[in-house]
Amino acid sequence: MKFNNKNISIGNNVKIGYNVKIGDNTIIYDNVSIGDNTIICNDCVIGEPLNEYYNNPNYQNLDTIIGSNSLIRSHSIIYAGSKFGDFLVTGHHVTIREKTIAGHHCMFGSYNDIQGLCKIGNYNRYHSYVNIGQGSELGDFVFIYPFVVLTNDPLPPSDILMGVKIGDYSQIATAAILLPGCVIGKHSLVGANSTVGGIYPDDSFINGSPAKRIGTLSKMPFFNKQNKKHYPWPYNFKRGMPWAEQGFEKWSSIKTNDNE
Amino acid sequence: MKFNNKNISIGNNVKIGYNVKIGDNTIIYDNVSIGDNTIICNDCVIGEPLNEYYNNPNYQNLDTIIGSNSLIRSHSIIYAGSKFGDFLVTGHHVTIREKTIAGHHCMFGSYNDIQGLCKIGNYNRYHSYVNIGQGSELGDFVFIYPFVVLTNDPLPPSDILMGVKIGDYSQIATAAILLPGCVIGKHSLVGANSTVGGIYPDDSFINGSPAKRIGTLSKMPFFNKQNKKHYPWPYNFKRGMPWAEQGFEKWSSIKTNDNE
Amino acid sequence: MKFNNKNISIGNNVKIGYNVKIGDNTIIYDNVSIGDNTIICNDCVIGEPLNEYYNNPNYQNLDTIIGSNSLIRSHSIIYAGSKFGDFLVTGHHVTIREKTIAGHHCMFGSYNDIQGLCKIGNYNRYHSYVNIGQGSELGDFVFIYPFVVLTNDPLPPSDILMGVKIGDYSQIATAAILLPGCVIGKHSLVGANSTVGGIYPDDSFINGSPAKRIGTLSKMPFFNKQNKKHYPWPYNFKRGMPWAEQGFEKWSSIKTNDNE
Repeated sequence: MKFNNKNISIGNNVKIGYNVKIGDNTIIYDNVSIGDNTIICNDCVIGEPLNEYYNNPNYQNLDTIIGSNSLIRSHSIIYAGSKFGDFLVTGHHVTIREKTIAGHHCMFGSYNDIQGLCKIGNYNRYHSYVNIGQGSELGDFVFIYPFVVLTNDPLPPSDILMGVKIGDYSQIATAAILLPGCVIGKHSLVGANSTVGGIYPDDSFINGSPAKRIGTLSKMPFFNKQNKKHYPWPYNFKRGMPWAEQGFEKWSSIKTNDNE
Repeated sequence: MKFNNKNISIGNNVKIGYNVKIGDNTIIYDNVSIGDNTIICNDCVIGEPLNEYYNNPNYQNLDTIIGSNSLIRSHSIIYAGSKFGDFLVTGHHVTIREKTIAGHHCMFGSYNDIQGLCKIGNYNRYHSYVNIGQGSELGDFVFIYPFVVLTNDPLPPSDILMGVKIGDYSQIATAAILLPGCVIGKHSLVGANSTVGGIYPDDSFINGSPAKRIGTLSKMPFFNKQNKKHYPWPYNFKRGMPWAEQGFEKWSSIKTNDNE
Repeated sequence: MKFNNKNISIGNNVKIGYNVKIGDNTIIYDNVSIGDNTIICNDCVIGEPLNEYYNNPNYQNLDTIIGSNSLIRSHSIIYAGSKFGDFLVTGHHVTIREKTIAGHHCMFGSYNDIQGLCKIGNYNRYHSYVNIGQGSELGDFVFIYPFVVLTNDPLPPSDILMGVKIGDYSQIATAAILLPGCVIGKHSLVGANSTVGGIYPDDSFINGSPAKRIGTLSKMPFFNKQNKKHYPWPYNFKRGMPWAEQGFEKWSSIKTNDNE
């Protein structure tokens, strides 16, 4: 019943793949491309125009790409000029601004606010209320927990834009604040409620407010139920990951298009 | 004018009580039951299907129950399989996931994200932006303030689910983070911006980041305008509470179905 | 295509100025006034009625005023009795409760929750997820960053309402919590993730959790790219500001209606 094409608006030059479903009251603007088998739920806006739309009669909407096999949950807004790989999943009430480029298998939780002009790798997973500032760069398999902010203005207010960079496999725990220009290496963990500035090497455990590097993450006593060190986590977590069947060790030893 | 039944969708086997009002553009899925005198405002989704809905042609929506005399404000989403007692009130843009069980007289503020599989008592009041992780258990009269998170994964990311438990009458102040497996006793107060792990007895004042038990709450010098110790708060606050007329002392001495 | 007057509801005694555009599925209640050239995007509610609406058959909606040249983005809700000057801009999913009075050129970011009964000056700019408690008073040119809360209840829960006051030109950085009754002077900066109580004079740098006054902001070594002290910031930031052309020094020396 959700997909009875009621009160839907579709713009010009919209490419809709095979077996795509679109929920009630959803608006799709010009120049949007939606991959096969993708579901857009109700009350969404895809290809939301930039401000210029309201003033310039010659405005042309930027191309927007939603990959195949994606699920965009209700009341979400994706601006024009953003491009997503396949298997995108969003929660509800998500806002993703213009010119964000994200890889495949990304999950953006409810109330995420991705501010635009961000580069996001594959298999990123963000819980609810994640705020990614403009100009952020995130590697692959970065997981971010609720109320985390990636800031970008070192002298509020200024016109300086210093985006945050986060390396592959790093985990940013609940309510951490990454200050402008902060760089987190790969396979690192930022603790809950930390306030983090500076540049950190791979395999760091970073914690506190103001935060410091507590130690080498893989050497810290974070033991799981098997009494085994949990980090690097890909050896111990596989749900939804591309190494789910063969394990991380074997998977990471085989270079394919899929894991880059 | 809100309730002119414009662009409303109602699924199969939906039970709508006496004097129920449903706002424009609202979608009610299969097997939802709505109690008498309840108001569902515009642009809501009640009984939002689980993921299986999108793939399984034999999908059956779980039963969803909204009690009587409730008010669900606009742009809110309640998943299938969640059940609420009477006098439920929500703010706007609320998301409540599947299989959450809540008692009567609960208030969930705007932008609340209740992640599902939670047990919530009676008379819970959550301010805006409260994030309750899966598997949380909350007693009666628990009040939670903005940007509080109840987490559940002790080793992010892992498949371990350690929900937080909060006892009756406890207050969790603004932006506190309750770490996985944290247990807060009854009649306690967690201070603003605290990061709280561990297990705390009843009548605790817990504060700091990392938090510790500062002392016995009822003995702390929190004085109100009458120069009287404010905690335990039910002796000093009655707005909307079931003891509003007779006072907490008398009310709590009478065991009825209503106050359990 | 957004403005084809599809599924719009307009109440009684609504005054719509010249060249106003209203998006699909938007609801405008009784006694709303919308200034010339203003754009209300899709799925909004303007003049959302107070609770009494649901019970009192004689309910009269309070007057609501949206100034001219404003842009209210999609899925936003503005309650009855709130009044805004010209050039209002909101993000998406914003909620502004009743009887809030705001000046001209204010920007409220996505997911802002303005709780009502607030006094807000001119040129306020709030990033995403800003939570302004009831009874707050904010001067002109106050900028607030994500996940900031202005609280108001010193003894949760109580019926005491102690709003926060923030002076002209002050900046409240990411995730700062302003405790009930807190007063921040003019031209001050509150650091990220601070927990701030108390009363602070003009030109303060306030930081920490619990926060203290670190020093006189204009004397702190916050240097910008020109190797010049950044604060007071109006001498160094002009984008969108009324002194953009003539500079702050000259602008502030000329008293006009526009800069008061």
